[in-house]
Amino acid sequence: MLKITFLGTSAAVPSAKRAMPAIALKYDKLFLWDCGEGAQREMMRRGIGYGGVEAIFITHLHLDHVMGIFGLIETVRMNTGREKITIFAPRGFERMLAGISPTMGWEPTFLDIREMKEGELYRGKDYSISAFRVTHQKRDAFGLVFQEDDKNKFHEAKAKKLGLKGRMFKEIQEKGFVEVDGKKVKLEDVSWVRKGIKVAYSGDTIYEERVVEASKGADLLIHEATFGEDLKDEAMLRGHSTAAEAAEVAKRAKVKKLVLTHIGARYNGTELEAEAKKIFKNTVCAKDGTVIEVMPEKEEKA
Amino acid sequence: MLKITFLGTSAAVPSAKRAMPAIALKYDKLFLWDCGEGAQREMMRRGIGYGGVEAIFITHLHLDHVMGIFGLIETVRMNTGREKITIFAPRGFERMLAGISPTMGWEPTFLDIREMKEGELYRGKDYSISAFRVTHQKRDAFGLVFQEDDKNKFHEAKAKKLGLKGRMFKEIQEKGFVEVDGKKVKLEDVSWVRKGIKVAYSGDTIYEERVVEASKGADLLIHEATFGEDLKDEAMLRGHSTAAEAAEVAKRAKVKKLVLTHIGARYNGTELEAEAKKIFKNTVCAKDGTVIEVMPEKEEKA
Repeated sequence: MLKITFLGTSAAVPSAKRAMPAIALKYDKLFLWDCGEGAQREMMRRGIGYGGVEAIFITHLHLDHVMGIFGLIETVRMNTGREKITIFAPRGFERMLAGISPTMGWEPTFLDIREMKEGELYRGKDYSISAFRVTHQKRDAFGLVFQEDDKNKFHEAKAKKLGLKGRMFKEIQEKGFVEVDGKKVKLEDVSWVRKGIKVAYSGDTIYEERVVEASKGADLLIHEATFGEDLKDEAMLRGHSTAAEAAEVAKRAKVKKLVLTHIGARYNGTELEAEAKKIFKNTVCAKDGTVIEVMPEKEEKA
Repeated sequence: MLKITFLGTSAAVPSAKRAMPAIALKYDKLFLWDCGEGAQREMMRRGIGYGGVEAIFITHLHLDHVMGIFGLIETVRMNTGREKITIFAPRGFERMLAGISPTMGWEPTFLDIREMKEGELYRGKDYSISAFRVTHQKRDAFGLVFQEDDKNKFHEAKAKKLGLKGRMFKEIQEKGFVEVDGKKVKLEDVSWVRKGIKVAYSGDTIYEERVVEASKGADLLIHEATFGEDLKDEAMLRGHSTAAEAAEVAKRAKVKKLVLTHIGARYNGTELEAEAKKIFKNTVCAKDGTVIEVMPEKEEKA
């Protein structure tokens, strides 16, 4: 199960209700997708153990997506025995850190800083986090994908019927078949492939074909929706999407659910949700503190 | 009247209840004393018009006191037509800004950055804001003083009794005396000096004689209280004060009221308030959102 907590859902400028962009993902480990100002405190307020954050992914270097990282790493350094935090960020992040770290009075040696680029960035025990390029002004800007590996799952009724027991389950997984009373049983006869869960995040972007591709069939698409249809042209001009465009991406990618975030300060969110729902029904607009749990399939599909 | 709002009252690390250090002062204009991460959002949440901030004073460059400034100036730049914000900060701030500003995509030309140093920094219509050195690790670290000018105020009953009227009030102020029916009336005969209000802020410091001097007779002393008596040695080691030390400063400086802030995460504040009150009775421990209004004297003292 992947638990996603929206720590901040504003765009550019925070409001009393919405903190700066940051999304916490908890699987076996804790990850942050973007880390806007105040993210550490939002983690504290929402009971998310900031000290255990394994890696932080910054989609692009606009201040609203990155300014929370310095305070967070300072807090982790002071309050925990952590020896390493991994940060994936576009080119330019190290220059920011070089400006700030002298005032911290310590060398940022416990940071493992890697340049954000397309492809797999992080490999977990049975999942990966990867990045893809999007189009946001003239920035190095990325979207992200969490992809759990597909897994072979036994169809217990079938396996039992064909006489599998004990060590045979291990053997059939290793060899792809097993002999039961002289009869060959193939793995695919008694198992099914459970699709790994998939969550995609657009980062900041205009309507972008690459988001459609990257989020194909995802359980969840988290897409920015900085503007509504009233400001469609401004969205393009500023390198952002409208709620309807986010919904169009969700529809074309055939995702299961769409969550709007990065909500422009002039909107309360419900109007954007309504605009998106006309195009893609299973849409919600995130609020600060919204939690979404993405579960894998429980049983084989018919 | 000077209205002081505590936007953040934590030390080093925020908590669910306490944001990073920042104090808003509203007189004719709005000032910030320190600007920890999240300050802009705390201003929004507390109805303080962040867009009008005239000048920001950073007492020292530890991250908890400064990291909110970049997001705030970015928000002011985007949302207002402001042409200038003045920032007083110790040496090193421009290096931080040089690291960060390229990612903003604009030159920080609307910032008027001045090096924090001892003495008067800002002159308002009838007040000044000045800085004094304190001792905090090996940092360039400062405390701040808001000082309203003393003013001549007429003692109306006396003035009336001696026959002053109309233009005579202007004349006596200009010349220091006026003739009423051939009789000389001196300004001091019909007026009293209203002491200007004074508020001092320690910044981060150990027990420091210079805070006593700088806050002499203040209406309000805002003093850090990172530790309690249980960790007196650690306070010294880390360059901070205990609540009792803050109270000792208040007592020796004969201030009217003491407010504790910069509260270490291990304390809830009430225990620090109690420790301080044993030494200086008129003490309160600030919470996030605490507002204190400092009023000038209304009438001549007996």
